[in-house]
Amino acid sequence: MRDEGIDVLCLSVGPDLPYLIGYEAMPLERLTMLVLPVESEAILVVPRLEAPRVAEHDDVFTLQAWEETEDPVQIVAGHLGGASVIGIGDHTWARFVLALQVAIPNARFVTASTVTAPLRAIKDETEIAALELAARAVDTIAAAMREQGFAGRTEQHVHRELVELMLDSGHERANFAIVASGPNAASPHHDPSDRVIRSGEVVLCDFGGTMAGYCSDITRMYAVGEPTTRIRDAYDALVVAQEHAVQAATVGTPCADVDAAARVVLGEAGLGDRFVHRTGHGIGMEAHEDPYIVSGNAQRLEVGHAFSIEPGVYVDGQFGLRLEDIVVATSEGPRRLNRAARDLAIVD
Amino acid sequence: MRDEGIDVLCLSVGPDLPYLIGYEAMPLERLTMLVLPVESEAILVVPRLEAPRVAEHDDVFTLQAWEETEDPVQIVAGHLGGASVIGIGDHTWARFVLALQVAIPNARFVTASTVTAPLRAIKDETEIAALELAARAVDTIAAAMREQGFAGRTEQHVHRELVELMLDSGHERANFAIVASGPNAASPHHDPSDRVIRSGEVVLCDFGGTMAGYCSDITRMYAVGEPTTRIRDAYDALVVAQEHAVQAATVGTPCADVDAAARVVLGEAGLGDRFVHRTGHGIGMEAHEDPYIVSGNAQRLEVGHAFSIEPGVYVDGQFGLRLEDIVVATSEGPRRLNRAARDLAIVD
Repeated sequence: MRDEGIDVLCLSVGPDLPYLIGYEAMPLERLTMLVLPVESEAILVVPRLEAPRVAEHDDVFTLQAWEETEDPVQIVAGHLGGASVIGIGDHTWARFVLALQVAIPNARFVTASTVTAPLRAIKDETEIAALELAARAVDTIAAAMREQGFAGRTEQHVHRELVELMLDSGHERANFAIVASGPNAASPHHDPSDRVIRSGEVVLCDFGGTMAGYCSDITRMYAVGEPTTRIRDAYDALVVAQEHAVQAATVGTPCADVDAAARVVLGEAGLGDRFVHRTGHGIGMEAHEDPYIVSGNAQRLEVGHAFSIEPGVYVDGQFGLRLEDIVVATSEGPRRLNRAARDLAIVD
Repeated sequence: MRDEGIDVLCLSVGPDLPYLIGYEAMPLERLTMLVLPVESEAILVVPRLEAPRVAEHDDVFTLQAWEETEDPVQIVAGHLGGASVIGIGDHTWARFVLALQVAIPNARFVTASTVTAPLRAIKDETEIAALELAARAVDTIAAAMREQGFAGRTEQHVHRELVELMLDSGHERANFAIVASGPNAASPHHDPSDRVIRSGEVVLCDFGGTMAGYCSDITRMYAVGEPTTRIRDAYDALVVAQEHAVQAATVGTPCADVDAAARVVLGEAGLGDRFVHRTGHGIGMEAHEDPYIVSGNAQRLEVGHAFSIEPGVYVDGQFGLRLEDIVVATSEGPRRLNRAARDLAIVD
């Protein structure tokens, strides 16, 4: 905070708060905010009715509960006297940012991630173990899906199964489960629909949740019967592109170069313009966080960075393909956390 | 917007966007923002890979997709030239608010809810029908839980059942399912735990989801075997308090008076200081929205206001009770949308 010239952090919804104190603010209209000054004691301002949810750590912060008829913004502002630069949590609702700016008109507000993102991006051994446990859980699900019949089911039906398997496997939260069949997979963030999956189609399953606070995220492809040569060829190129990007993800390499490693392979296969998104994103307590594996990002990988490598190929009106694993940068080189088979699974 | 002196609305995550254009922004780091000027054409700025998710309505807005290497804040700012007052969506992430403030330093930013909240608070017939359908679904679940055994199960196990029943009943999303047993129910927003429910305890179930875009929210109480006289008496008072508040919720009545109607009853029963939260919240596309049924809120109920009435009684270390229905203010008086039996259910 001193290096960045920030006098106080104000953290609300999002992963900064659980990262620092183990408590997650409810994403509701009653403000929860940790006031964390560079010099003095931290104070957690919470709605009275949520105070019993907080495990108190008197050595870390003091709890201040506000009543239904009080204005929590005024309470927070009362603890910010004299602060000239305030780092506010990146996910804080606009209404609270604007109200705090009115309450403390002379302060400058900057994003708290200036301080928290570099801390959160480097995972220690305990965090990597948590990411690996979550990865192992979705690996098992990805493998189980190879034994499933897909034909005749709707995307929503498969989606629901993925959600339940994530919860059954120990995730406390299923964050998303994209199931995109046939031409629907050309939309990278497709919402599972009531479309019935048919024989001859390829289905993209991209799913992840939160397990003991840390996120999983995996994408695997399932072909209902033998795929066309065109899809087979594109998938083969995708596997090579993903492998090249994983191998490029060594400590000291700029994120942009890792992105380029996948892009070159798909370009040579004549699929460069079909790969319409970045190669990956950091992962930790948040599904997407620093570092981003994207063209233009000169940030160099460090030991403990954890991120997805997920190139894709999308052909409008026809099909979409993606292959995704979570990778950790280590001093011994890139280490994949996901181990589920990466071939194009042939299913019923 | 003209009445409020707002030149342009900038709407991102949260319910304002689906309310106006039927599209919900993904709550991720890639910015989606509708730029809606008071005079000229609206533009929806979306990440390229999410553009296929948007059902285009050329008569309502123009779509502008941004590439992974572009800065969406600069793109939005490019459409805000000349705006001096910008209404920004209440749930917009702080990082985007701050970046827009830097990009457009001379504009004043206010909450978009100044414009949208009064629109969203008044439900038309279609919206009330949607709320009623969602209410009917959770009514059925609340009734089914009366036939369930609770003793010997964990709170998390019952939580999971409620989530699955909500999804089975047609909710596209289970928003929450509080299951709080015995002393845990003294914490109004208790997180379901691995605590095993025992005979002689009372269990609070407060659950809701989103169905066809509109929210359900209900609380019912389940006693595992015959409850103590103290709990029975407190529950009897709670039923009367809830009924009084519902009957007070007539068009023209200030929200504070509805809150007071419940509070008076519990006060007379010697339980005034056990009722630690407001009586209710508005409900619609968002689980909590205007109008808030809380002391100090002079806002008068209007035809089409929909809100919860949910007084509670909380005794630290012993038990907690709450009873909640959704109510709509109509010209014929208050109308409950929930019809599930309101007595203290005796279960195994």
